Amino acid sequence: MSELTLETAQAILASTLRAARTRGFKPLSVVVYDARGAIKAAASEDGTSLKRMEIAMGKAQGALAMGLGSRALHKMATDRPHFIAGVTHAVGGFMVPVPGGVLIKDSQGHLLGAVGVSGDTSDNDEIAAAGGIEAAGLTFDAGA
Amino acid sequence: MSELTLETAQAILASTLRAARTRGFKPLSVVVYDARGAIKAAASEDGTSLKRMEIAMGKAQGALAMGLGSRALHKMATDRPHFIAGVTHAVGGFMVPVPGGVLIKDSQGHLLGAVGVSGDTSDNDEIAAAGGIEAAGLTFDAGA
Amino acid sequence: MSELTLETAQAILASTLRAARTRGFKPLSVVVYDARGAIKAAASEDGTSLKRMEIAMGKAQGALAMGLGSRALHKMATDRPHFIAGVTHAVGGFMVPVPGGVLIKDSQGHLLGAVGVSGDTSDNDEIAAAGGIEAAGLTFDAGA
Amino acid sequence: MSELTLETAQAILASTLRAARTRGFKPLSVVVYDARGAIKAAASEDGTSLKRMEIAMGKAQGALAMGLGSRALHKMATDRPHFIAGVTHAVGGFMVPVPGGVLIKDSQGHLLGAVGVSGDTSDNDEIAAAGGIEAAGLTFDAGA
Repeated sequence: MSELTLETAQAILASTLRAARTRGFKPLSVVVYDARGAIKAAASEDGTSLKRMEIAMGKAQGALAMGLGSRALHKMATDRPHFIAGVTHAVGGFMVPVPGGVLIKDSQGHLLGAVGVSGDTSDNDEIAAAGGIEAAGLTFDAGA
Repeated sequence: MSELTLETAQAILASTLRAARTRGFKPLSVVVYDARGAIKAAASEDGTSLKRMEIAMGKAQGALAMGLGSRALHKMATDRPHFIAGVTHAVGGFMVPVPGGVLIKDSQGHLLGAVGVSGDTSDNDEIAAAGGIEAAGLTFDAGA
Repeated sequence: MSELTLETAQAILASTLRAARTRGFKPLSVVVYDARGAIKAAASEDGTSLKRMEIAMGKAQGALAMGLGSRALHKMATDRPHFIAGVTHAVGGFMVPVPGGVLIKDSQGHLLGAVGVSGDTSDNDEIAAAGGIEAAGLTFDAGA
Repeated sequence: MSELTLETAQAILASTLRAARTRGFKPLSVVVYDARGAIKAAASEDGTSLKRMEIAMGKAQGALAMGLGSRALHKMATDRPHFIAGVTHAVGGFMVPVPGGVLIKDSQGHLLGAVGVSGDTSDNDEIAAAGGIEAAGLTFDAGA
């Protein structure tokens, strides 16, 4: 397992928020997990709703749980809803299968962690996460 | 964050029940939360079923969690059932995505809390909540 | 099962809050359940902490669960902590075994419901609940 | 209810980590909640264990739930373990009653949120949180 340092996680967090601000997205909650599923960094912009962060967490945790960007989970949930429903229960309830949970990889393709974003449309949440990871010099896997 | 006082919450509760009685709705459970998601006031009319209040609570908590009247959650649940299923888990299980969870806002549009109503049809539950908030001199957002 | 009407529940709620204000207690959360464990009425005074209502609910639900005022549960928890720990799990987690969960009975001793109070010391919480039930012309059982 | 901005939350987070580094504490997980119990900012230093952040979250959420710095919860848990056990269940399991969950207040004493810290001894965790809040120009309540 490659390690995601706090410094890198904070860089991804900052560039994700910048990516959202440049595009005029709604206020976001953003969380960065390492590959173990431990929170390294998180921030909620002013104006997010009460449980917005929990939704961001669910996207990133779902991505890590199955090793796929959450757009792929979204497709699975559409094609085979019972599968994702079952997995959600099996993993303890923390999986939000829509775009915006994006895997972080290094240049060799090793998994470093995942970013979860919620607050705008799922597509825009994903754009912010992917842009943030890229701006930090890393590779993203959104599950496309 | 603006504060919802007990006095205002009780006024909303009373006018919601009045709105229901004027229209001859079935017995209702009504709950009023502040913007933190803390219960300020609640009442179940005589004749409500065993867990009717929990359903009212789920509507209001869902609205606060996502910052949207629960009619909008209802639409999301119809369009993307896996999304609302995932969010429900992520926020701890307390979300009932049908009309009747209505946000309370002040004249400047600041969020004060939410009303949850259950007992009649979802549409009628929403009518009672919206009418109650309006009669108390505040603005409602049902998620239309 | 005797029925606790909304009118009576609201009278108990109001007299419990009055009992607290006369004595200068800290801001309270008060909930009134019927004998089925359904919420009939609830109020949080201004200034209560985020989960104060949940604690009040746990006291009343514990009292109803075992048919004993929560002071008796407090004694059990002191004498046989493993018993109350086990019961708490068995009933789904909703039991706060300290004074302030007080049974409501009619003049024939039939159970009507329970009041849960939290916000001041457990002893004062119980004083408010017992005073409120008595002022509404009913009989209380605090578990002494 | 006063609002804790992301800017202030990030300042508290940074000064809490600085307070820990100056004193040579072990790697910490730090989380900053607003008064609603929503995460505003969080960071885990390199080397924290798998669920260290969840412990920090439990300290801060316990403090917000009961409106007391978690050192006071620690005393309650020692004096009346069944009470804190019951409350933990009642609030949904998220309460770690040891020092290190510290309330954030403004100069008028209004609650702004809470900081949770875990990673070193509970006493040191609290020192970091209190120092961080103070360095950000705000007032702390550790529950002493």
